[in-house]
Amino acid sequence: MPQISKKGFDMPASPIRKLSAFAEKAKLEGKKVYHLNIGQPDIETPANVIAAIKNVDFKIWAYTSSEGTIAYRNKLVSYYNKFDYNLTVNDIIVTTGGSEAINIAMMACLDAGDEIIIPEPFYANYNGFAHQSNVVIVPVMSVIENDFGLPPVSDFKKLITTKTRAIFICNPNNPTGYLYSMQEMQDLKVLALKYDLFIFCDEAYREFCYDGKTFISPLNLPGLEENVVIIDTISKRYSACGARLGCLITKNKSVMASALKFAQTRLSAGMVEQIAGEAAVDTPDSYFTNVINEYTLRRKILVDSLNAIEGVICPNPGGAFYVVAQLPVDDAEKFCQWILEDFNYENQTVMMAPAAGFYSNHEAGKQQVRLAYVLNANDLTKAIECLKQALLVYPGKLIKTKKIRILA
Amino acid sequence: MPQISKKGFDMPASPIRKLSAFAEKAKLEGKKVYHLNIGQPDIETPANVIAAIKNVDFKIWAYTSSEGTIAYRNKLVSYYNKFDYNLTVNDIIVTTGGSEAINIAMMACLDAGDEIIIPEPFYANYNGFAHQSNVVIVPVMSVIENDFGLPPVSDFKKLITTKTRAIFICNPNNPTGYLYSMQEMQDLKVLALKYDLFIFCDEAYREFCYDGKTFISPLNLPGLEENVVIIDTISKRYSACGARLGCLITKNKSVMASALKFAQTRLSAGMVEQIAGEAAVDTPDSYFTNVINEYTLRRKILVDSLNAIEGVICPNPGGAFYVVAQLPVDDAEKFCQWILEDFNYENQTVMMAPAAGFYSNHEAGKQQVRLAYVLNANDLTKAIECLKQALLVYPGKLIKTKKIRILA
Repeated sequence: MPQISKKGFDMPASPIRKLSAFAEKAKLEGKKVYHLNIGQPDIETPANVIAAIKNVDFKIWAYTSSEGTIAYRNKLVSYYNKFDYNLTVNDIIVTTGGSEAINIAMMACLDAGDEIIIPEPFYANYNGFAHQSNVVIVPVMSVIENDFGLPPVSDFKKLITTKTRAIFICNPNNPTGYLYSMQEMQDLKVLALKYDLFIFCDEAYREFCYDGKTFISPLNLPGLEENVVIIDTISKRYSACGARLGCLITKNKSVMASALKFAQTRLSAGMVEQIAGEAAVDTPDSYFTNVINEYTLRRKILVDSLNAIEGVICPNPGGAFYVVAQLPVDDAEKFCQWILEDFNYENQTVMMAPAAGFYSNHEAGKQQVRLAYVLNANDLTKAIECLKQALLVYPGKLIKTKKIRILA
Repeated sequence: MPQISKKGFDMPASPIRKLSAFAEKAKLEGKKVYHLNIGQPDIETPANVIAAIKNVDFKIWAYTSSEGTIAYRNKLVSYYNKFDYNLTVNDIIVTTGGSEAINIAMMACLDAGDEIIIPEPFYANYNGFAHQSNVVIVPVMSVIENDFGLPPVSDFKKLITTKTRAIFICNPNNPTGYLYSMQEMQDLKVLALKYDLFIFCDEAYREFCYDGKTFISPLNLPGLEENVVIIDTISKRYSACGARLGCLITKNKSVMASALKFAQTRLSAGMVEQIAGEAAVDTPDSYFTNVINEYTLRRKILVDSLNAIEGVICPNPGGAFYVVAQLPVDDAEKFCQWILEDFNYENQTVMMAPAAGFYSNHEAGKQQVRLAYVLNANDLTKAIECLKQALLVYPGKLIKTKKIRILA
């Protein structure tokens, strides 16, 4: 029998879906499972987007051009230029989700063995895409004590070698929710220009910034244009994860030409999605006002109730819809399995994503979990109560929890 | 300014879309351009598929599972098992078009430097996907004199090295339209088992077989199950190229486990597409009867009129909707550009795909073009008349055309 590739054998499995079997089993046993483990919001997709799908009007479901329809790219230009990105349609390639944009960005810019610095914890699937391109991820540690803010410039400098080609950030951050400040973005700019590095920026959560804080894109920083590759998706923005519609943006014409060849090889992104995407750009502002109010409420519930549990530490992040919290447990992965398998509170339990999968250095995230506040306030409250009760009885509970913070 | 990757620099551009700029220019000059260059059929998508899009009924456009929805995979099982594939849902991963299935198959099975033998001419984008995975394509020549049938087994054997891991065929073939016989498939089976090779089979054109000929999948050959990876797409079957919905099929559990990790990294295929895909499987047989009658008619018009032109040689292929024809010209790429740029017949001209892009050895296809019979009989007739008139006056016309056949 022919054997699979070493590339396939070594390919990292997704940590986010790792505990799915235990959750399924819990459900079969009649437990209600609160899913705080995934980034699939329960927010409704805007009605105008769904209407656009229902109103499609064509006889032939045809390829679009590889870079995306001109109509959709025009709409995207109008969307991004509201954020002062200063784009033309030629700066955008429409992709199959943000996933494909990451993949194309890596292939277009990076060769096997090239190094890319990423603040960790980071979105676990970056590992998978780097593995596909044989790109080496060099993590730089962001810490819970600093609310997972950008690590100091000096930490980046220590990691830069002749092979370093890019810094990759996610802003606002998945998994930590951290929203980078203007100063942090300026620090990145200085680094990128000094060492001639690409800045890859995953902006999937751009619209979700709280407390009146401003989102800063690297494309907002004059003089950095040639270094920046933006990765975006409509998945979270319009609660349309299943659309698989994203884009790659760059004003660097060589990168664009390189990326386009990869895009042409896979022919095109979806046609219906691009039609729906056009409609999405016209989503009324009230949709976002409502969604942001809702997420702000949920964040408050989640962060406040987590910090009220003895030994739990949870920053109050400025964006996205995730938090990474530290739990008073021996091993968060064990705990996440235990709470599904061996625990219930009033026949309910919680699924969380162990944070270790978001770290290259798995030890660093050993007591942390990522929680997505993608459930309504009522369910969220019940889920945290479950978690609280579980922490009271979990056999691997740590007592001297405050020490963790000091020592971490 | 940071530089793009060598991988991006060396990435082959798509030969199919290469002449697009000249076609656009011709149109701007007011010429009617007949597009015989692309595999985008003018056949209407089945009404039931479009109705399924228009009838979507959900509030949240959500991720599906990475392997595809159970509902769609169940439908696919019923479709494939009509062809005796003997599948279960666990043998299928739903992909974003056939393109992604090719990409995942290569990554799951092949490492950098591994060799894959492909009869040439072959679908040009295989080059792009192989390049992405650093897989080495080793072409084995199929020749127009043999109607582009499978090259002799002895030719394959000469090319097999310790690095050979797979043979990749497209059946019915793009670009040649050739439909492999049972004997040819058996030859491939013997090779695969003897040398422990994967058989990758791109079956995008499965439904388009003519003259009552039978389609044979490698999954129809008992004893070969562990070696086979099928790549499929609904693009051509239901004239739904813009759906970007395909699948990877294998009964080899290690390959499936490896492929699933790549699928999980990109989260899921499109949700609306999978809903439409379910409906597609229920497309009435009459749709295919009509389509096959239409393609049979067009093929006859195309093949007969091409062979009636002095110096043109065109096999009569058993499947798909392409032919590769040999023209009495010095260089088909020059000719294809010239006919767009410097020629018109009654203000009409023709866009064709130079076949050189479908060969690793570009010289081998230097006098050949791929023509897709994706236009109706009337337009097709006019297009061939254009081509005929063009060949009368093309400055690079070859006189001793019959010699080409003998010498080729």
